[in-house]
Amino acid sequence: MDTRIPPLALTMGDPAGIGPELTAKAWAALHTTGPHFLWLGDPATLPETTPTKIIAHPNEAAETFPHALPILPIPLTTPATPGHPTPANTHAITQSIAQATALTCAGETAAVVTNPIAKSVLAAGGFQHPGHTEYLAALCNIPGKELMMLASPHLRVVLVSIHVSLRHAIETLTTERIIATSRKTADALKRDFGIPHPRLAIAGLNPHAGEDGLMGLEDREIVAPAVEALRQSGIDATGPLPPDTMFTIDARKTYDAAICLYHDQGLIPLKTLDIAQGVNITLGLPIIRTSPDHGTAFNIAGHDKADPSSLIAALHMAATLATNRNRNPS
Amino acid sequence: MDTRIPPLALTMGDPAGIGPELTAKAWAALHTTGPHFLWLGDPATLPETTPTKIIAHPNEAAETFPHALPILPIPLTTPATPGHPTPANTHAITQSIAQATALTCAGETAAVVTNPIAKSVLAAGGFQHPGHTEYLAALCNIPGKELMMLASPHLRVVLVSIHVSLRHAIETLTTERIIATSRKTADALKRDFGIPHPRLAIAGLNPHAGEDGLMGLEDREIVAPAVEALRQSGIDATGPLPPDTMFTIDARKTYDAAICLYHDQGLIPLKTLDIAQGVNITLGLPIIRTSPDHGTAFNIAGHDKADPSSLIAALHMAATLATNRNRNPS
Repeated sequence: MDTRIPPLALTMGDPAGIGPELTAKAWAALHTTGPHFLWLGDPATLPETTPTKIIAHPNEAAETFPHALPILPIPLTTPATPGHPTPANTHAITQSIAQATALTCAGETAAVVTNPIAKSVLAAGGFQHPGHTEYLAALCNIPGKELMMLASPHLRVVLVSIHVSLRHAIETLTTERIIATSRKTADALKRDFGIPHPRLAIAGLNPHAGEDGLMGLEDREIVAPAVEALRQSGIDATGPLPPDTMFTIDARKTYDAAICLYHDQGLIPLKTLDIAQGVNITLGLPIIRTSPDHGTAFNIAGHDKADPSSLIAALHMAATLATNRNRNPS
Repeated sequence: MDTRIPPLALTMGDPAGIGPELTAKAWAALHTTGPHFLWLGDPATLPETTPTKIIAHPNEAAETFPHALPILPIPLTTPATPGHPTPANTHAITQSIAQATALTCAGETAAVVTNPIAKSVLAAGGFQHPGHTEYLAALCNIPGKELMMLASPHLRVVLVSIHVSLRHAIETLTTERIIATSRKTADALKRDFGIPHPRLAIAGLNPHAGEDGLMGLEDREIVAPAVEALRQSGIDATGPLPPDTMFTIDARKTYDAAICLYHDQGLIPLKTLDIAQGVNITLGLPIIRTSPDHGTAFNIAGHDKADPSSLIAALHMAATLATNRNRNPS
C-alpha cells in the first residue's frame, strides 16, 4: 500500500443514508490495496460485520487499514435509522466534515472525501450552507471561491454556476466569471491532474452557441470575449462551442475539461455517460476534496443494495490528486 | 423490397454540402434492401459513378430503385461547388422541400426525408423560416404546431422549445405548452411508433428539478401542474424529473420519450450518446418527415468523407413510421 501520503479523511455523511454501507464496502474493496483512509463517524451505524478500530490520531490509520476500518469516532445525538433521516444529527454530520477539513488543512490527512448529505435535512437542523462545496469553502475561509468539477473516465466538467435556478445562472453569467473559472481549472489541471498544457472547451449558452446572434446574444457578448481573453493570456481555450455537439466521443478527445455555464449543461452529459464512476471534485480550495456523484439514497439505505463504485472512484481520485500535488506544490 | 408503401421523397439539401454524397451513399447501401426512395435534385451534383434515372412520376421509383437512383429533377440556378454555398440556389433548395411535401401530402410519396440545409445561406437568399421544421409546418398550413423529436436507438426526446435563446425558452415556458407537446408526443408514439401505452418522462427546468423550490420555482409552478393534468387525462407522465439523472441507462428504460424544456436539455444527451444514428423527426404535421441529425458539413463536402449513417437511419425511420401509420390511421 502506498503510504507516501497521509490517510484520506472520509466523512460520515447522513447516517440514515447509504454512507455507512458505502464506507464498509469501500474499506472491504480497498483494504489490501489502498488508498488507505480513516472514517469520521459513529461505529454503531456500520454493518456489524465490518472490522473496525477506534484510533486516536490519523498516523495510526496506515497500520490499521489492512485489518480494520480506522475510525475517529463522532457519536450521533440520536441513533440512526436507515431511510429515516433526522435533523437531530445535524451537529454530528457537520462536525465530521469540519474535523476532516481541519485535519486536512493541518496535513494530518491527505484529502477530504465526503459521503452524501441531504441538504433539506441539514437545513431543518440549522445548517446554513447550500451544500458541501459551499460549506468547505466557508471552513477554509474562502467563501465564493469554490468550484465544482465532475470527473469520470470519459469527461471532466467544471461549472460556472452550481446550485441556482437556470434563470439565475443566465442572469449572473459574466465574462469575468468564465475567465476566473477557466483559470482556476487550468491551474488545477496542471497542479493536481499532472496535465502540463491543459486544453479547455468553453461551452456556449444558447442552442448552436447562438448561431451568429440568431438565438441569443450572450455567446457573442459574454462568452466569446472570455475565450479571447483566456487565449491572450496563454491558456488553450476554445469556444463558445455549440453545447449539444461538444460532448460526443470525438469532441471529448479535443479537450481536458469542459467549462459549463450552468449545472445541467455539465451534469447531463457526465451522468448520461457514466453514473457509476462520476466523482465530484472541489477546485479552488487550499485542500483536496472529492465525493461520490450521487445522493444519500434514503430509499435503499439499510438494504445492502448501494453501489460503492462512485465512492471508491472518489477515494482513488483523492489519492491521485494528493500525490500529484505533493509532486507539484504551488 | 417492401413496396407496400410509396417511395420516400428525399430532398436535395444544400447542393454545396454533403447532401449529394450522402444521397449516393444511401442509395448504394439500400438499393437491394430498401426502403426505396426518390431524390428531388440536380443530377449534375451527384458523384459521377452513381447510376441515376430521371423519372416522371413517383410510381416509377419502385422498379427503378434496385438499378439506379430515381430522380425527379430540380435544376440548380448556378452549378454547385462543394464547400462553397451560394444564396443563388435558394429557390432550387426550397423547391425540393416544397415538392417533396406536396407529393407526400398527396400520398404519392410516403414521407419527406430532408438533406441538411444551411439557414444562414438560405436567409441570404430570401428564405424566411428558421429551419426545415418551421418551413414544413408553414407548407402544411399549421405554423406553430410543429414539434421536433430526436430519436436514436438509445433515446427519444421531444423539445418544448427549439431554436430560441435559453432565456427565451425559460420566459415562454408554460404549463399549456408542456401539456400540448406531451399530448402530441403520446399520440405520435401510439400512431407512428406502435407503442400502445406510451410512457413520458417530463424534465424539470432547474437543477435537481428545483429541489422543493430552493433552486427556482418553475418546476413547482409550471411543470408539476402539467404532469398532474396529463396524468389526470390518462397519459402515463412522470416528472418534473431532475434533468441530470433522467438520461442514465437505467432511467432511460423507464420511458418511451423524454419531454425536454429547451433545445440543449434534449440534444446534449441524445448527441452525447450517439451522434451517428440520431434522427430528427417532425411531429405534429399531417405528413411524416425525418432528417439526419447533422448539418451541411461544408468543410468536408466533396471529399468523400461524409458518414451516411444518420441519413440511412432517417430513411429507415421514415419507412417504419409510414408503415405504422398505414396500420394505425388516425
